[in-house]
Amino acid sequence: MPKKPGKNKYSPHFLKRDAVQGFTEYCGLTSVSMEPGRFVTRIKIEKHHLQQDGFVHAGVIATMADHTAGYASFTLIPEDKVILTVEYKINFLRPASGDFLECRAKVINQGKSILVCESEVYSIAEGNEDMVAKAMLTMASVSKERVREK
Amino acid sequence: MPKKPGKNKYSPHFLKRDAVQGFTEYCGLTSVSMEPGRFVTRIKIEKHHLQQDGFVHAGVIATMADHTAGYASFTLIPEDKVILTVEYKINFLRPASGDFLECRAKVINQGKSILVCESEVYSIAEGNEDMVAKAMLTMASVSKERVREK
Amino acid sequence: MPKKPGKNKYSPHFLKRDAVQGFTEYCGLTSVSMEPGRFVTRIKIEKHHLQQDGFVHAGVIATMADHTAGYASFTLIPEDKVILTVEYKINFLRPASGDFLECRAKVINQGKSILVCESEVYSIAEGNEDMVAKAMLTMASVSKERVREK
Amino acid sequence: MPKKPGKNKYSPHFLKRDAVQGFTEYCGLTSVSMEPGRFVTRIKIEKHHLQQDGFVHAGVIATMADHTAGYASFTLIPEDKVILTVEYKINFLRPASGDFLECRAKVINQGKSILVCESEVYSIAEGNEDMVAKAMLTMASVSKERVREK
Repeated sequence: MPKKPGKNKYSPHFLKRDAVQGFTEYCGLTSVSMEPGRFVTRIKIEKHHLQQDGFVHAGVIATMADHTAGYASFTLIPEDKVILTVEYKINFLRPASGDFLECRAKVINQGKSILVCESEVYSIAEGNEDMVAKAMLTMASVSKERVREK
Repeated sequence: MPKKPGKNKYSPHFLKRDAVQGFTEYCGLTSVSMEPGRFVTRIKIEKHHLQQDGFVHAGVIATMADHTAGYASFTLIPEDKVILTVEYKINFLRPASGDFLECRAKVINQGKSILVCESEVYSIAEGNEDMVAKAMLTMASVSKERVREK
Repeated sequence: MPKKPGKNKYSPHFLKRDAVQGFTEYCGLTSVSMEPGRFVTRIKIEKHHLQQDGFVHAGVIATMADHTAGYASFTLIPEDKVILTVEYKINFLRPASGDFLECRAKVINQGKSILVCESEVYSIAEGNEDMVAKAMLTMASVSKERVREK
Repeated sequence: MPKKPGKNKYSPHFLKRDAVQGFTEYCGLTSVSMEPGRFVTRIKIEKHHLQQDGFVHAGVIATMADHTAGYASFTLIPEDKVILTVEYKINFLRPASGDFLECRAKVINQGKSILVCESEVYSIAEGNEDMVAKAMLTMASVSKERVREK
């Protein structure tokens, strides 16, 4: 019996695996945990993540903030929809270094087709953590067909 | 005779080379051109730049937007200062695919220590270009010493 | 004969008048000009627009940036839709004073239901103008019925 | 004996009064409470706060978000400095109506001269509250002299 469109949600198992492919796999991202409206990821800091001053490049941090919020959103939508990032804003609070980065994202508001999220990125070294960036993101839930047309 | 601090600007030759190292080298970024207050970069789109729907990951686009605006800012500051990204906001206008991405950044306002920039990212395929994202960025010009302390 | 839904656009006459009511009328906003995808407004600077340091309050500038972009968006949508602001980001480039403020807004991308706009706000004194703020805004075009339900 | 510059902080009494003048007084803003790094304000919703669809104008909400974050920042800086808004980003979560708006702002990171804040704006009607907007803001702490020059 076919599933009714729009009724089922993505499974945690699928999302944790789906979050790591293409660019995020290339960046070394791993899925840590998820619950409805929340997602956590990590990246072990390597030399190829750094910028000209020896800190983690803002692009790595922003990629985590965006991607993790996207998957926090995926936990709330039916399987015939996908999430696209409409826009986001990110503040960098201090230069990032350490052993790894952890990003914790949550959906703070779910509208009919727009989800608003927040992501906090922490640098972790020897058990101490510092918030290095915070982002506020607008996601759109769109039908799979509409994305394929583009 | 030593240079006076704060008088000289970074040379174009240095900046075009300096922009490609660490994470941006890992992402395949190349410097295309620069003039005072402007910088242009490119990335040839590869499979490891994509996300789950087969489009270029927003993180690649955001990395270009941020980094290119940073180097547009570097063209305007003395050699004893460096640029740090305070924050930015980016809108994704359409899914990105094609042969390569080009980012064109410019400084739209230079204050005493804050520079405001805009970056436009285009996807280019068979000679046609589409703007896929636009960002507005706030950069801080800070002394090299202050960065090293962090 | 009834108009087909979604076919007609708002008339310039209607929009220029509609833009000035409620809070914007209270703020002294006037419509200056419009063309498809663009709108221009002005506010004569009065004492009640200022903040604690004697400059125009950022809230006045942001109200103009948002409202003018909203009406630039209204020029492109059918009469059975209205514009709601999803979000925006605004940079304040310098403290604002002078005779009046002028805001020039334009739509830089029109998607199926999302419009991305830019607004520039200038302070004008004795014929000289300075850009005091720039904003990037995300607008949603939604049916009138959906707004009334809220 | 003169106070040492940069040592004393603004008094709660002064800030609560200082927050209401010029444009914010014109908008009907009142100071509700403050503690270090936090500030709360309210506006009783009147007809002149509305926009064309009968909801509170986004400009009123943004003015509160910005101003309240500004005064949350003022609680943390010495008396020879003032706060200027560098930029902010605000998401509007739902149309706002009701009896009054309340804005709760807090400083989430204080750097040497940059403070990052968050503001949440709630509409309150018959004791129920809904978050109608959330903003993330970048403030600069600058010397009074530097502002006067501008």
